[in-house]
Amino acid sequence: MGASLFKRLVVGRPMPLSLARHERLSKKTALAVFASDALSSTAYATEEILRVLVLAGAGAVSLAIPVALAIAGLLIVVATSYQQTIHAYPQGGGSYIVARSNLGATPGLVAAASLMIDYVLTVAVSVAAGVAAITSAFPSLFGHRVAIGVFCVAVTAFSNLRGLRESGRLFAVPTYLFIATFGTLVGVGLFRLFNGDVWPLPSAPVEPATTLTGFLVLRAFASGCTALTGMEAISDGVPAFKEPEYRNAAITLRWMAGILATLFLGITVLAAALRIMPVEHETVVSQLARGLFGQGTFYYLIQAATALILILAANTSFADFPRLAFFLARDHYAPRQFGKRGDRLVFSNGIIILAALAALLLILFHGDTHALIPLYAVGVFVSFTLSQAGMVRRWQVERTSGWRWRLAVNGIGAGLTAVVALVIAITKFTRGAWIVVVLIPILVLVFHAVARHYALVADQLSLEGYGGPSPIRHTVLVPIGDVHVGVVNAVQYAKLLSPEAKAVYVETDPQQTRRLEEKWTKWGMGVPLVILTSPYRSLLTPLLEYIDHLQEQKGEFRRVITIVVPEFIPAHWWQHLLHNQTALLIKGALLFRKDVIVTDVPYHLTH
Amino acid sequence: MGASLFKRLVVGRPMPLSLARHERLSKKTALAVFASDALSSTAYATEEILRVLVLAGAGAVSLAIPVALAIAGLLIVVATSYQQTIHAYPQGGGSYIVARSNLGATPGLVAAASLMIDYVLTVAVSVAAGVAAITSAFPSLFGHRVAIGVFCVAVTAFSNLRGLRESGRLFAVPTYLFIATFGTLVGVGLFRLFNGDVWPLPSAPVEPATTLTGFLVLRAFASGCTALTGMEAISDGVPAFKEPEYRNAAITLRWMAGILATLFLGITVLAAALRIMPVEHETVVSQLARGLFGQGTFYYLIQAATALILILAANTSFADFPRLAFFLARDHYAPRQFGKRGDRLVFSNGIIILAALAALLLILFHGDTHALIPLYAVGVFVSFTLSQAGMVRRWQVERTSGWRWRLAVNGIGAGLTAVVALVIAITKFTRGAWIVVVLIPILVLVFHAVARHYALVADQLSLEGYGGPSPIRHTVLVPIGDVHVGVVNAVQYAKLLSPEAKAVYVETDPQQTRRLEEKWTKWGMGVPLVILTSPYRSLLTPLLEYIDHLQEQKGEFRRVITIVVPEFIPAHWWQHLLHNQTALLIKGALLFRKDVIVTDVPYHLTH
Repeated sequence: MGASLFKRLVVGRPMPLSLARHERLSKKTALAVFASDALSSTAYATEEILRVLVLAGAGAVSLAIPVALAIAGLLIVVATSYQQTIHAYPQGGGSYIVARSNLGATPGLVAAASLMIDYVLTVAVSVAAGVAAITSAFPSLFGHRVAIGVFCVAVTAFSNLRGLRESGRLFAVPTYLFIATFGTLVGVGLFRLFNGDVWPLPSAPVEPATTLTGFLVLRAFASGCTALTGMEAISDGVPAFKEPEYRNAAITLRWMAGILATLFLGITVLAAALRIMPVEHETVVSQLARGLFGQGTFYYLIQAATALILILAANTSFADFPRLAFFLARDHYAPRQFGKRGDRLVFSNGIIILAALAALLLILFHGDTHALIPLYAVGVFVSFTLSQAGMVRRWQVERTSGWRWRLAVNGIGAGLTAVVALVIAITKFTRGAWIVVVLIPILVLVFHAVARHYALVADQLSLEGYGGPSPIRHTVLVPIGDVHVGVVNAVQYAKLLSPEAKAVYVETDPQQTRRLEEKWTKWGMGVPLVILTSPYRSLLTPLLEYIDHLQEQKGEFRRVITIVVPEFIPAHWWQHLLHNQTALLIKGALLFRKDVIVTDVPYHLTH
Repeated sequence: MGASLFKRLVVGRPMPLSLARHERLSKKTALAVFASDALSSTAYATEEILRVLVLAGAGAVSLAIPVALAIAGLLIVVATSYQQTIHAYPQGGGSYIVARSNLGATPGLVAAASLMIDYVLTVAVSVAAGVAAITSAFPSLFGHRVAIGVFCVAVTAFSNLRGLRESGRLFAVPTYLFIATFGTLVGVGLFRLFNGDVWPLPSAPVEPATTLTGFLVLRAFASGCTALTGMEAISDGVPAFKEPEYRNAAITLRWMAGILATLFLGITVLAAALRIMPVEHETVVSQLARGLFGQGTFYYLIQAATALILILAANTSFADFPRLAFFLARDHYAPRQFGKRGDRLVFSNGIIILAALAALLLILFHGDTHALIPLYAVGVFVSFTLSQAGMVRRWQVERTSGWRWRLAVNGIGAGLTAVVALVIAITKFTRGAWIVVVLIPILVLVFHAVARHYALVADQLSLEGYGGPSPIRHTVLVPIGDVHVGVVNAVQYAKLLSPEAKAVYVETDPQQTRRLEEKWTKWGMGVPLVILTSPYRSLLTPLLEYIDHLQEQKGEFRRVITIVVPEFIPAHWWQHLLHNQTALLIKGALLFRKDVIVTDVPYHLTH
C-alpha cells in the first residue's frame, strides 16, 4: 500500500526484537546522546544570569561569578546524588519510577508531570537558543527565527523516528565538536586572562533599571540554574548503556558533570572579565568568541558547534519523553497507545506529540529563548527533589550497608533542590513560572482520570461473574436506491449473514417504485423488499423510524440489526466525491446507536 | 441527535412536497429577488468607467456619458433578446438549457461554466461593493472590510438555507428602498442640473498616467458592462413566477431593464456634471450623494440602501447557482448530490459551496471591488452570446410565425454580446480576465469527465446481460487482543454471521498466549482460536498475511472474508483517545481490499 511504503521510506525497515540488544550504547556514544542537553545549556545559562544582573547596572555584572560558583556547587551535589540513583536503579531510575516506588503514586505523578513539561521546554529552549547562535552570526536571519526553529524540530523528530542507533552516530560529532571548541575557547581565554592579555570589550553604557537587591541576585541564580537541566537524562536511560550498565552510566555522569561545570564557570569568568553586556540580537557566547578570536574561522566554528549541539540537544527529550510516556502507559496513567513500540523499537507516538508541542511553544513565544526561560527549570527541580526524596525514603526502609551516609548525600540533594525549586517558582512566578505551577497539578489530575477510566473499563469488561451474552435475534437490512450489480452483490452478502435479510427502499416517487419492484422480482434473490414512504423527501427519517419500530418489538431476545450498505470503491480518488454520499449519511446517523451494526459492502469499480 | 437539532434550528422545519407550489413569487416580489443583482450594479458601474478614463486625465472623464449611452443601448438589445427566450422557454430558459438544447452539449457546458464562475463573482463583487458603501460612510471600518464581507456572505447563505419565500420577503424592502432613494438622487440631481443648480466638486488635481486611446475607451466600456450582469436571472427563474409565468416574467424583465438604464445613465451624467474623480476610500455614489445633499440623513439613507441591495444582490446567485448545479447534476455533468433538494426544498449543497468560494475570493482579493471587476463580466457575456445564438438556431429550425424578425432580434443580440465578450476578454486580459478564460475550458473538461465517469459506472452496474453474482465462500474472523466482555459479544455476533467464524490472536509473548487460551476454553463458545506468531511485534502484518493465505485458496467459489472488530463506544468523547487505536489500524489497512469486509461491533461503555 502507498501509505505503508511511505512509512517504510521515512522510518526505515522494521526490526525484529532480537536486534534490540545491539542498540546498546558505548560510553562515548551515550555521552553524546544523553549529555548534549546538559552541556548545551552552557550556551545560554551565563547569559541568563547576566540579563538579570544587568538590570542593576553594569557594575552588578561581576556578581555573576559567585552566582555561577553556587550553581556549580549545586551541580556537584545533584550529580553525586544521582550517582546513587543509578546504582540503586540499574534498570533505569527516572524521577517518576524512583518517586513512585518509594513515595507513592501521586508524588510519582507529580515528578512525571514536571518532567513531561520540562522535556517539551527542553526542545523549545534548546532549539530557540540554537537558532539564536545562528542569527548571531548571520543577523539577516533574525526575522526568520520561528520558521528556522520549527524546521529544526521537524528534522530532529524525523531523525528520532529512524531509531536510536542512528541517533547516537548523528549526535556524536556535534557533541564532541562542541566540547572541543568550547574547551578551546575557555582554555585559551583563561590562559590569556592569567597572562593579562584580555581587555574589556567596548559596550553601550547601561542605565540601571532597578537597585541591586537580594531578590535580584536570587533571580539571577534561578535563571542560571537552567545549566542543570538535562542532568537526569542518564539516570533515566541506564538500560541503554552497554554492560555493566550502571557502572558505565555512573562514569558517563561524572564526565558530564565535570565538563559542564568547567565550561559553565569558564564562560562566566571570561564574560565578566570582558565586561560583556547581554544584547537582543547577539548571544553572550557569540560576543565572547568574537572578542577573544575576532570574527574569523574559529568564531564561525564556535557558532556552528553551539547551534548544532543545541538543536540536537533536543534529542535528549526525544529519547526521554516517549520513554516516560511508555512507563506511564504501562501503569495505565497515559493512553494505551504510548505503550506500543513503533516498528523500529522507538516510541513513535510520543516523538510526534513532543515535536508538535515544542513547535507550538516556539511559535507562541516567537522563538525567543529569554521568553521561554522562566517556564524552564521549575519542573526540573521539582523532579530532582522528588527523585532524591524517594532515595532518602529508600535508604530509611532498606538500611543496606552505608545507608546513613547515602541517606545524608541524597538528603542534602533533596533539601537543596527543594529550596532551589521554590526560589525559581517565586522569583520567576509572574514571568511565566506560574504556567508550570498551574499545569503540574492539572496533568496529575489527568493521569489519575485516565487510570480511573481504565480501571472502570476493566471492571465493565471483566468476565468475573459474567453470565454470558443474552441470545440475539438478528435482522439484516439493505437500504437500496436502485437495483444494479452493486446492490445485487450487497444483497447476496446480506442473505449470507442471515436468512431473514430484507431490502429497504424509501419511496419519493411512486412511478419509480413500480419500476424498481419489477427489477426486484428478477434480481431480488427471494429477499423481501420493504417500501417506506417519505412525505418530506428525506431518505433518512423513514429508515430510522423503521429501525426504531423493529427495535421496539421486545422479547426475551436481544434484537441486533445489521445495516448492509452497498458502497462504491472508485478507481480514482477524485471519483469519491461523486459517490457514497448516501452511505455516509446512513453511517453518520447510526454511528452510536445501540445494537445497530453498519457494514459497508464495497463494490470495486474498475474504471 | 444533536447535529439534527442544530440543522433544524438553522434551516427551519422540513417542508412536504405539496407546499412547493405556494412558494411562487408575485411580480413585485420577483423584481426584488431577481433584479437586485442587475440594479445594484449601478452602485459601481459608473465608478469603474471613471476609474479607467481618469488614467488619461481629468478631461477624459466627460467621455463617460457616451460610453454609458453605448452600454444602455446594449442593455436594451439584450433585454429584448431575452424577452424572446422567456417566451420560448416558460419552463425556465437559462443559457445552459437554451445553448444545450439548440447548439449541443459542449456549447451548453461552456455557458454553464461561464455562469458558474459568474455567480461566484456576483456574490464576491456585490458584497465587496456593499462593504465599500459602508466604509465610505464610516471610514474607520475600512481596515475590517474583508471580515465584514465574509460575515455578509455567511448571513446571505444562512437566509437562503431557510428557503425561497422568506428570501422574497427579506429582499423586497432593500430593493424598493434602493429604487426609491436612487430614484430621488437621480431625479433631484437632474432637476437641479437642468436648472443650473449644480457645481463641480473640488478635487485633487489628477496627473494623466497615459494618453487617451481608443483602447482605453474600450477598456472603460468593458468595465461599465458590469452594469449588465444579472440580466439573465429572470429568464433562468421563470417557473418561480406566479401564473401566467412567462407573461409576468417578461413584464418584470422590462421594468428591470427600464429602471436599470435610467439609474445608470442618471448617475453617470451627474458624476460627469459634478466632475467626480474616483478615490480609494470613498465610492463615486457616496461622493455624489454627499455633493448633492450634504452629509445628512438622506446621505446615510443612500449609503444604507446601497449597502443593503448590494449585499442582498448576492441572493440572485444564491437562487441561481444551486439551480444550475441541479440542472447539471440531472444531466450527469455534476456530482449527484447537487441533484438532491434539501429538506426545505432549496439546494443546500450548492448554497454552501457558493458561499465558501465567494468568501475565498473576498479574502484573496482583500475585499476590493476594483480588483475583482476584471474577472467579472467575461462569463456573463459568453453566456449571453451562447444563449442568444441558441435562440437564433431555434428560429432557423422551428420557423414559427414571425421567425425571421425574431431571428434578427436574437441575431443582433448574439452578435453584439459576442463582440463585447471579446472586448472585455482582450482589454482586461492581463488584469485578471485570463483567469476566467483559462477556467472556463477547465470546467467544461471537468463536466465532461464527470459525465463520462457516471456513464462508465452505469455500464459497470448494468444488469443487462449480467449472469448474477458468483457463489460465495464466507469466512468470519475476529481479531482479539484479550478475552473480555466486549470480545465475547463480538464473537457471539461473528458466530451469528457464519458457523465458520474464527478468532485470531497475534502472539507477542508466549506466556500471555497460554493465559489467553485458558480463558478461551471457557468463553470461546466453541469458536476456534487461531494463534499467529509475530517476530516483529507488529500486530497487523501477521493478520494481513493470514488473510492473504485464506484468499489464495481458490475454488469455484468467491472467498469473502468478514473481519469483525470489537470497538468500544465510550461514555465521554475524550475517552475515545484512550481506545480503539488497534481497531482503527485494522480498518485502515483493509479499507480498499477486495472481498474483505470490515465490521465494527460496538460495545457501549456506561461510564
